[in-house]
Amino acid sequence: MLRIRGQQRTTRPDAVAAEEPLEIRLNGTPLAVTMRTPGDDFDLVHGFLATEGVIGGPGDVAGLRYCDSVDAEGRNTYNVVDVDLAAGVPVPDTGLERNFYTSSSCGVCGKASIDAIRTKTAFDIAADALRLPLEVLLVLPERLRAEQQVFAKTGGLHAAGLFAADGRLVALREDVGRHNAVDKVIGDGVRHGRLPLAGHVLMVSGRASFELTQKAAMAGIPVLAAVSAPSSLAVELAREVGITLVGFLRGDGCNVYTHQERLELD
Amino acid sequence: MLRIRGQQRTTRPDAVAAEEPLEIRLNGTPLAVTMRTPGDDFDLVHGFLATEGVIGGPGDVAGLRYCDSVDAEGRNTYNVVDVDLAAGVPVPDTGLERNFYTSSSCGVCGKASIDAIRTKTAFDIAADALRLPLEVLLVLPERLRAEQQVFAKTGGLHAAGLFAADGRLVALREDVGRHNAVDKVIGDGVRHGRLPLAGHVLMVSGRASFELTQKAAMAGIPVLAAVSAPSSLAVELAREVGITLVGFLRGDGCNVYTHQERLELD
Repeated sequence: MLRIRGQQRTTRPDAVAAEEPLEIRLNGTPLAVTMRTPGDDFDLVHGFLATEGVIGGPGDVAGLRYCDSVDAEGRNTYNVVDVDLAAGVPVPDTGLERNFYTSSSCGVCGKASIDAIRTKTAFDIAADALRLPLEVLLVLPERLRAEQQVFAKTGGLHAAGLFAADGRLVALREDVGRHNAVDKVIGDGVRHGRLPLAGHVLMVSGRASFELTQKAAMAGIPVLAAVSAPSSLAVELAREVGITLVGFLRGDGCNVYTHQERLELD
Repeated sequence: MLRIRGQQRTTRPDAVAAEEPLEIRLNGTPLAVTMRTPGDDFDLVHGFLATEGVIGGPGDVAGLRYCDSVDAEGRNTYNVVDVDLAAGVPVPDTGLERNFYTSSSCGVCGKASIDAIRTKTAFDIAADALRLPLEVLLVLPERLRAEQQVFAKTGGLHAAGLFAADGRLVALREDVGRHNAVDKVIGDGVRHGRLPLAGHVLMVSGRASFELTQKAAMAGIPVLAAVSAPSSLAVELAREVGITLVGFLRGDGCNVYTHQERLELD
């Protein structure tokens, strides 16, 4: 790597964030491929399957293993995970991820997507009685950064952290893809049988998109906080399902887009 | 929206980046759904199809139109685009996007993905004779920001810009998804019959992932520059196909990860 800073030019090795494809198979059939940072793959798989509505808890997975994908030299790539669903758990249609939005609607519109998720999530998030002091919310970004192991080295990873109502960090995961970081955090909860993650805050290092809000909804998380901006459909979905959506959480401030009643201001 | 900055609390309307699903259909059959910012949808569709290897130029598309997806009130949502391929252009397998990485490999590994793209791109990027003065490269981030119309208002959009070798902006597009912003920029080139985009620089506001590098490769773009970090597989792919990959392009510096011979330092 050639490093240029003004007149300074240095050539040196550089650590970059690892990215590899992970193929998720269900009972031997390919379901999805995601580009992810290797590590916590079983969390990722559990979180992906839970937020897509395929599994509801650890008991729905009978077993999972890295299966035999090999590179040209015959070494296991650890890039394929095969999941056996427990008896009675229905296998979804393949192509699930991309078809998710269209499956429940004659056309495609944001409203239909929101309706589909409101139907799909098993949890009544609007009823979550969490009250979160503002001072707890404001320290979360710093706490997330402090715990990020890889970021300091590569500057290239998204982070997602699950926090308890008192600001205690429950789980932190990093990934080149922010949806993967969230799947890993939620998957950790799934594997420990903790869904719904009522009374918790999900904090993400980037923006709050529709997809991330959807994942929070599917996991029963009442507060989603992002360092950066939310999208329009994220705001609409959060409002509909009862999630407190916080954006631009940095320094001594934030923007609260929905369900601000959960926030205790002073 | 409740805005909190220290002791200041104000409630006011806020502009957020629009996000809606777009379903792309080929000859009436659903191919993919992407969450995108509405606008430049026909560019997005052309870019998506070109970077996935479905079309090679504007002549491969016989026609495209918004088709009749309607919301609950019967209004067109403009969220479905149906594409008719020209006679003789083969329709890919559905589920294409997610299956792209797996289709050419018995297992799944980064190397196989890179090989697949090297085979798939029709353009010899390594042979691109572009020489780019460092001072031109260093002004691109500022030029991209200056041209971004929506960002200033919402803080929530990714941008992609295509620049000529003299730093002139050829096309700029924004989107909640950075891959969509890139597809829109490339799609603009496809619609004008300009592929391969030899001698050009693609600049993106975020990180340089494998997917973005792949899109640059499929469009024949010899330089990919990102404001933030690249991933490992992005670096490997850029090296293999002959793309100059620049990261952390900001202020008076940058990191050049591959093919630095294109950069004229002083």
